[in-house]
Amino acid sequence: MIKENLNIGLFGFGCVGEGLYQVLNESKLLNASIKKIVVKNKEKERNIGAENFSYNKYDILNDPDINLVVELIDDADAAFEIVKKAMEKGKHVVTANKKMVANHLEELIEIKKANGVSFLYEGAVCGSIPIIRNLEEYYNNDCLTSINAISNGTCNYILTRLDLEKASFAEILKDAQLSGFAESDPTLDIDGFDSKFKLSILIAHAFGVVVAPDEIINLGIRHIKEKDLTYAKEKGYKIKLISQARKIDNTIEAYVIPQFIAKDSYAFDINFEFNGVLIEAAFSDKQVFKGKGAGAFPTGSAVLSDISSLQFLYDYEYKKRHQDGLQLATDFLIKIFVSSANEKSLNDITLSTVEESYTSKNYAYKVGLINKSQLTYEFYSTHPELFIAVAAD
Amino acid sequence: MIKENLNIGLFGFGCVGEGLYQVLNESKLLNASIKKIVVKNKEKERNIGAENFSYNKYDILNDPDINLVVELIDDADAAFEIVKKAMEKGKHVVTANKKMVANHLEELIEIKKANGVSFLYEGAVCGSIPIIRNLEEYYNNDCLTSINAISNGTCNYILTRLDLEKASFAEILKDAQLSGFAESDPTLDIDGFDSKFKLSILIAHAFGVVVAPDEIINLGIRHIKEKDLTYAKEKGYKIKLISQARKIDNTIEAYVIPQFIAKDSYAFDINFEFNGVLIEAAFSDKQVFKGKGAGAFPTGSAVLSDISSLQFLYDYEYKKRHQDGLQLATDFLIKIFVSSANEKSLNDITLSTVEESYTSKNYAYKVGLINKSQLTYEFYSTHPELFIAVAAD
Repeated sequence: MIKENLNIGLFGFGCVGEGLYQVLNESKLLNASIKKIVVKNKEKERNIGAENFSYNKYDILNDPDINLVVELIDDADAAFEIVKKAMEKGKHVVTANKKMVANHLEELIEIKKANGVSFLYEGAVCGSIPIIRNLEEYYNNDCLTSINAISNGTCNYILTRLDLEKASFAEILKDAQLSGFAESDPTLDIDGFDSKFKLSILIAHAFGVVVAPDEIINLGIRHIKEKDLTYAKEKGYKIKLISQARKIDNTIEAYVIPQFIAKDSYAFDINFEFNGVLIEAAFSDKQVFKGKGAGAFPTGSAVLSDISSLQFLYDYEYKKRHQDGLQLATDFLIKIFVSSANEKSLNDITLSTVEESYTSKNYAYKVGLINKSQLTYEFYSTHPELFIAVAAD
Repeated sequence: MIKENLNIGLFGFGCVGEGLYQVLNESKLLNASIKKIVVKNKEKERNIGAENFSYNKYDILNDPDINLVVELIDDADAAFEIVKKAMEKGKHVVTANKKMVANHLEELIEIKKANGVSFLYEGAVCGSIPIIRNLEEYYNNDCLTSINAISNGTCNYILTRLDLEKASFAEILKDAQLSGFAESDPTLDIDGFDSKFKLSILIAHAFGVVVAPDEIINLGIRHIKEKDLTYAKEKGYKIKLISQARKIDNTIEAYVIPQFIAKDSYAFDINFEFNGVLIEAAFSDKQVFKGKGAGAFPTGSAVLSDISSLQFLYDYEYKKRHQDGLQLATDFLIKIFVSSANEKSLNDITLSTVEESYTSKNYAYKVGLINKSQLTYEFYSTHPELFIAVAAD
C-alpha cells in the first residue's frame, strides 16, 4: 500500500483551517503536516504566532516541497485562481468552496487531468456527510434514479424554528443572523443559490452530467407567509428547502424549491442545522444520510477525510461522465402550491392544470401542475407576494 | 481506468440471487454477467429454466473463465468452504454471509492476500447502508471514536411494534414470523447473535481489530416484560437492540445489549425493519446512516455495489489493522437497568454500585454500574425472569 507523505500548504485560517491545523498536529495515522499557511489579513488576531503565517500566495504555490494545497478561503474567484495555479504546478488540491467548484467544474476536471493531480472537495457539499465519496465509489453503477437533499443548514434552521415558534420569517432570520446561523447577507443561503451550487456538484457525481448552476432553477424560502406555515401545520406537513435531481429516461429533472414534507418522508426528521440526503436506486431501498452540514467540525472532518485519502492517492474518477447521453431536462411539469395574500396576484403565474384553489379575504392559493420553464428566479424575486412550494407527494 | 470484465459464478438463487440476476441482465454500466448458477435443491421450482442451474459446486470452482464468485447461500459452513476454495483458485469473492465472515475473518484475509484476489461483503452488514465501504474509505484515519448501530431488522421490527401496540413479546414475535419479519427459529436474531456477527465485522473496519464474535457479549430482547415497556414509555424512551463499540484509550469496549433510547438519540427515529448506524469521530459531528437492513433489495443493492466496484479491482485494505496496539476490553463498567417480576431474583446479579432501586408487589428494578464480565449470554439465557438493558445516557 503506497502511503504518500503530504506537505500541506494551507490557504485560510478561519475556524475550519484552525481546527484542521490542530487535528493534523494530533493525529497519528495521518502522514501529513502543514508546512505553510497563507492568509489575507495581517491585522487579524490568531491563536497561533504570526511566524506561522505568510501573506503571499506564491510562498505556497512556488514551494516545490508542498505537494498538497488545502484551500479554505471565502472568495470564490480568488480560490479558483489559487486552485488552478496549484494544480498547474503539480500539486493536489482539497477545497470546500462549493461556489468555486460548481461554477468551474468542467474546467477544473480538465486541469486536474492535464496535470495528473487529485482534486477533492467533499467539504463543499453537506459538511460531514460523505455524499460525494458515496456517489463516486458506492453508487457508481447506473441504478441510481434520484437524489434528494436538504443541503443548506441556514434554511433548515430557519424553517425548523418557523415550524416550532410563533414568529415571522423576518424575526427568525434576524435571530439566526445574531446567533451565527445566518450570514449578514443571507441571499446565497435563503434564496437557494448555495443549495444549487451543491446540487450541480451532486448531479456531476450522481449522474455524470456537469451542469452549470445557472441552468438549475432556484426558488428560496424568503417569501413564506405566516398563513403558509399555518396551512402546512393543518396538513401535518413541514416546509423544507429541497434540492432534487431525478433521472427520467435520458434527462435529469433538477430544481431547488421549497417543498411540503409529509411525516413519512426522510426530510421530516432532518431539523435545525442538520443536512440530509436521500438516495434512490433501482434494486435498492431508500438510503438516508444525515449529519451536520456546515460549521468548523463537520466541514473540517470532510476536509480531513479528503487529506487522509490523498495519502493513498485517491481521486474522483467521474465514472459516469459522458455515459448514457444523459442531459439536464429543460422543461418538465412540477406540481406546485402557490399562495398570496391577494388572490389577483395568483394570476401572474400560469398553471397548466389547477387541481385545488382556495380563496378568502386575506389568503388564496392554488395547487396544480406548472411547466418548469414558467418558473425563474428573476420572476420569483420580483413577486415577493407569491410563495411557491412543491406540493406534497 | 481499467475496467475488468466479470464472469460471475453465482451460488444460491434465493430472493437476493434472483434479483441480482435480473438487474445484471438490465444494467448497462456493469461489465458483468452471470455465467453459471449453482443451487442445492433440484426439486425447488424457480422462475428461470432448469438449464440455467447446476448442482455441483465444482462446475463454478473449476471453471477458469469465472473470475468472480458471488456467494449467497444460507449455510455458513458450506459457504466458508466455497469461498475459501474460490479464492484459492484465484477468483474474487462477494458474499453477504455475516456469520461466515465474522467467524473466519482473520483466515479469510490471509487467504485473499495469499491469492491476490478481492474479498468484499458489504451485504453482510446493515443491508443497503454502505457502512463497511465508508469505514474503509472515508473514516480511514484514527479519528473515529465510536460506532453504534441498530443492525438487526427483526429485533427492531418487534421492538417498534411492542412500542406501538398493546401486545406481548410472544404475540408480536409470532406475528412477525407469520409475516416474514422473523425466522421460524428466531434465536440468531432476537438473542443478538446476528448483531454481534455484524459488530465484529464493523470493529475490524472501524478500529482495525479482528475480534471473534465469541468475545463480544450479547444479551437479546427475549426477556422484555410488559412492565419494562411501560417503564420505557413513562420515561419517554424506546427500547432498541444496540450494537456498540467505543474506543477508550487503547481498548475497544463492545457489546450487544438492549438499550433505553431517549428522544434526542439518532436511534429513536430508526423504526420497524430499518437499520441505522451512528459514527462518532474527533473533529467530526455525529454522522447517521439509515436504510433497510435486510431483504432482497437492500442486500442485493449492496452485493451489486460490490460487484460494480470489482470492475475497478476494488478491495478492502484494512488500513487500520495492527495499528495503535488496540485490543478488545475484557472488562469495563456499564450502567444497566435490570428488572424482574420477583424482587429476590434481582439478587442473582451483582451491581458494583446501585443508583436507583424500585420495588412493588409484581415488579422491581435496579439501575447501576456492573462489570461487563458479570454479564454473559449463558447467565442471561438461564435467567429468563430478568430483563437487562443499558440505561439511557
